[in-house]
Amino acid sequence: MDMLWNGWGDPAKAAPLPESVTGLLRDLLGVTPCTAPALALEDIDLPAPTAGPGALEALARAAGGAEHVRTDTESRIRHTRGKSTPDLLRLRAGDVADVPQAVVLPATHDEVLAVLRACAAHGLAAVPFGGGTSVVGGLAPERSAFVALDLRRMNRLQAVDPISRTAVLQPGLRAPEAEALLAEHGFTLGHFPQSFEWATIGGFAAARSSGQASAGYGRFDDMVLGLTLATPEGTVETGRAPRSAAGPDLRQLILGSEGAFGVITSVLVRVRPLPATRVYEGWRFASFAEGTEALRRLAQDGPRPTVLRLSDETETLIGLAQPDAIGAGPENGAGCMAITGYEGTAEETALRREQAAAVLTECGGTLAGTGPGERWAHGRYSAPYLRDALLDVGAFAETLETAAFWSRVPELYDAVRTALTDTLTGAGTPPLVMCHISHVYENGASLYFTVVSAQGADPVAHWAPAKHAANDAVLAAGGTITHHHGVGTDHRDWYVREAGPLGIEALLAVKRRLDPDGLLNPGVLLPTD
Amino acid sequence: MDMLWNGWGDPAKAAPLPESVTGLLRDLLGVTPCTAPALALEDIDLPAPTAGPGALEALARAAGGAEHVRTDTESRIRHTRGKSTPDLLRLRAGDVADVPQAVVLPATHDEVLAVLRACAAHGLAAVPFGGGTSVVGGLAPERSAFVALDLRRMNRLQAVDPISRTAVLQPGLRAPEAEALLAEHGFTLGHFPQSFEWATIGGFAAARSSGQASAGYGRFDDMVLGLTLATPEGTVETGRAPRSAAGPDLRQLILGSEGAFGVITSVLVRVRPLPATRVYEGWRFASFAEGTEALRRLAQDGPRPTVLRLSDETETLIGLAQPDAIGAGPENGAGCMAITGYEGTAEETALRREQAAAVLTECGGTLAGTGPGERWAHGRYSAPYLRDALLDVGAFAETLETAAFWSRVPELYDAVRTALTDTLTGAGTPPLVMCHISHVYENGASLYFTVVSAQGADPVAHWAPAKHAANDAVLAAGGTITHHHGVGTDHRDWYVREAGPLGIEALLAVKRRLDPDGLLNPGVLLPTD
Repeated sequence: MDMLWNGWGDPAKAAPLPESVTGLLRDLLGVTPCTAPALALEDIDLPAPTAGPGALEALARAAGGAEHVRTDTESRIRHTRGKSTPDLLRLRAGDVADVPQAVVLPATHDEVLAVLRACAAHGLAAVPFGGGTSVVGGLAPERSAFVALDLRRMNRLQAVDPISRTAVLQPGLRAPEAEALLAEHGFTLGHFPQSFEWATIGGFAAARSSGQASAGYGRFDDMVLGLTLATPEGTVETGRAPRSAAGPDLRQLILGSEGAFGVITSVLVRVRPLPATRVYEGWRFASFAEGTEALRRLAQDGPRPTVLRLSDETETLIGLAQPDAIGAGPENGAGCMAITGYEGTAEETALRREQAAAVLTECGGTLAGTGPGERWAHGRYSAPYLRDALLDVGAFAETLETAAFWSRVPELYDAVRTALTDTLTGAGTPPLVMCHISHVYENGASLYFTVVSAQGADPVAHWAPAKHAANDAVLAAGGTITHHHGVGTDHRDWYVREAGPLGIEALLAVKRRLDPDGLLNPGVLLPTD
Repeated sequence: MDMLWNGWGDPAKAAPLPESVTGLLRDLLGVTPCTAPALALEDIDLPAPTAGPGALEALARAAGGAEHVRTDTESRIRHTRGKSTPDLLRLRAGDVADVPQAVVLPATHDEVLAVLRACAAHGLAAVPFGGGTSVVGGLAPERSAFVALDLRRMNRLQAVDPISRTAVLQPGLRAPEAEALLAEHGFTLGHFPQSFEWATIGGFAAARSSGQASAGYGRFDDMVLGLTLATPEGTVETGRAPRSAAGPDLRQLILGSEGAFGVITSVLVRVRPLPATRVYEGWRFASFAEGTEALRRLAQDGPRPTVLRLSDETETLIGLAQPDAIGAGPENGAGCMAITGYEGTAEETALRREQAAAVLTECGGTLAGTGPGERWAHGRYSAPYLRDALLDVGAFAETLETAAFWSRVPELYDAVRTALTDTLTGAGTPPLVMCHISHVYENGASLYFTVVSAQGADPVAHWAPAKHAANDAVLAAGGTITHHHGVGTDHRDWYVREAGPLGIEALLAVKRRLDPDGLLNPGVLLPTD
């Protein structure tokens, strides 16, 4: 099934907002209903491809047949940009400036190499496309003549090694497909980001995804033991051992490269036994500061829950901590809600849960039972649907995220909230800014912000300065420009500041060697020359 | 204190071999006493430096004074090569072909930058020098005109962040100095490689060191959260957050770069509370295969001891599993000895030890009490002294190591043992080959081999084909060419095969950008043009 072309996910799962929420939007944020009629996909007028028949024939030969090169309007629109709120708003407004010339669907590593050669020969750029879920402009290159290199035909589980607990996955596997194939062998990856239902293995690796169970299963880049990369200059293969002292870690050069160095064509991952038990529960803290200290304590001294999240006061009040309770208002209770989850054998999870409960209690937490945990788990992938519903009623909603060392977290939290609130208020669309911690480490944590406001006259134009101010605030307060969404084109200028001129030059040297014609995702991650 | 110039460590700690061992060497391996008289440092005839006064003056200006540029014979010899067995044998034979022109001792990051500029201006290569403990030719560049860039003056703890549990260490700090400074704040790094007493923080990072407590504290590259790199083209700074999705991980490009990309001038590390309890004990298994399965079980399903090692049958018999019992022969018992260690709070270690004991028992292990554990802990840094004693009595002794995924470990073990045994036996010096697992991961483990034989007429020449055959066997059996010793010049040709031509080209592109004149460790890690 294809995703909704101008929104998120399965159209059948779309749900209208509860009346409590629309009332809140109206009263608190001044949201007024959209008046413009919705555009249908058929209404969009697409410029004809400039790629000539010679180029399309070369791509067809490379991808094993003309049926694997699509130039129809629907295919091209479905590969236009990603799923950030500006992406959706621009598409809804009929803006298809970033449309690919064609969609190419190679089925093997060698076909990917051939497609890249064909692109080079015909002056086309190539944008690797997995689930199309980028929210950072990762699919909008700085060149108009490009093809979307859709990896959906590379969707096999290629090998399982139950002794080493490893598996080889193809990049076009969507996460639920990968989990189903691994489950046949009794294994799981344990990678459950909010994009789980749509995003792919290759995309997780290319963008350093991090899932909601990262406290227990690690980030996706922790799971990757080896990668195969197809580049215009040939193949890079990595991963002979879990860890090595044989030079710089080439895996870590490919992870996070966002298609700018090559196309990831297979991923060797660690897998874990399917857990027999999964239990999630809620804990209430008096304040975000108190809850943050409790999370830090668990992250540093253990025991480590599998899922560990904490919503700030605003997010708790609104109910985003447990999406099935959104808009319940004061009934969601005062203070901050944390969600803890435990996955594993029955015995192991029971012990860990008991030990963690003792720590959380000592840190001031009050057990709120499994109800909030179950509501969180039930709604764990529903926030993007909620965003569609918000956009439909005239509200603006977007998210952004960062991470820092623990000692910088309070300052970073304040700085980003202030930047967002001040800028949007100044633009006449005062926002509601909510935040949660959803990824913890011994030495720091992520902060994930959700912003809701009225759309105003031009929501994309209203948002740009706020996002700009938030990015500046992130760097000034010592955070990283992105903890798990990636760089894309949206974060690139701040990424250049974060990595520093010589760090960027080192990466550009790699890019020039692997992609001398600059055809891979030009302008994504790294600046073009 | 300086290390023994032609051997390991503190001369006062040298100990003669027990009679049981010399008897074994004679009877089993045909070792005959050395007859050549030992060479004194003063006897060595050193070629005068070719670097002229202009170059030395420029270096002195860069390093803040003429007293920080040393050209005396002793300083130069003490910075000649590292501590591999061929290194020691060649030095003992008076071969100083790899001697530096001078030893330069900058005290700050800016002085390091200035020294690199001075080197570039005067056509000198630069070899960063920490503890001088490389065993892979990491200090022997492929250029005769070079200076040793000794970092011993950069030996401060620059910052401690107790909230984030991080610290900033300078690269020239020896591990015991770093531990002592951190202990004043209640923290430890937990990094205890065999070279602990001499090796430095910068060297650990540059060569991806792994310590004996890696099961609990992780490898050194797990501990590094940020790095500052001084290059001929300027500075690279990394590490704003514990983890990030902001592009490829530049830290992982610097870690393992062995001085070929730049000089590491500061390291941001994670630290942990000093453990209240440290307990080590022995477990006996019927075979290496049975013990390996037990280690895999703990590595994959937990609980994870802080130290986890397993000697094979030969190493157990000889007593290397517990160096204080070396040469006790059959008294060391049949089968294989494992050492498990637990560090942490009293309560936590007691629980973990109890749970691990249940698993080890279930896997066929028999508790051998704390005696073997205490003997292991007492002798944990003594193997290099033992090697000196072996060399002194006419024996040859060297080590090598690798790692692989669990399913490949048995084949890798057999392949390397066979390669070493066959080659050395064919050369007329049949060896004793011992092995242990000392680093475990969810998905694989390291193998560390110790080889002892007679020296024969020319021990360096005898060893070279055996090492060559072992390296070939490592790659053929799916292992990595080095798990924690590094690449240097000794492993470089096999590293090039492991990383593949395009992987090496990507790294060379980085090197050319950061070090356009190729002055940094030429030929170390990467081939010269």
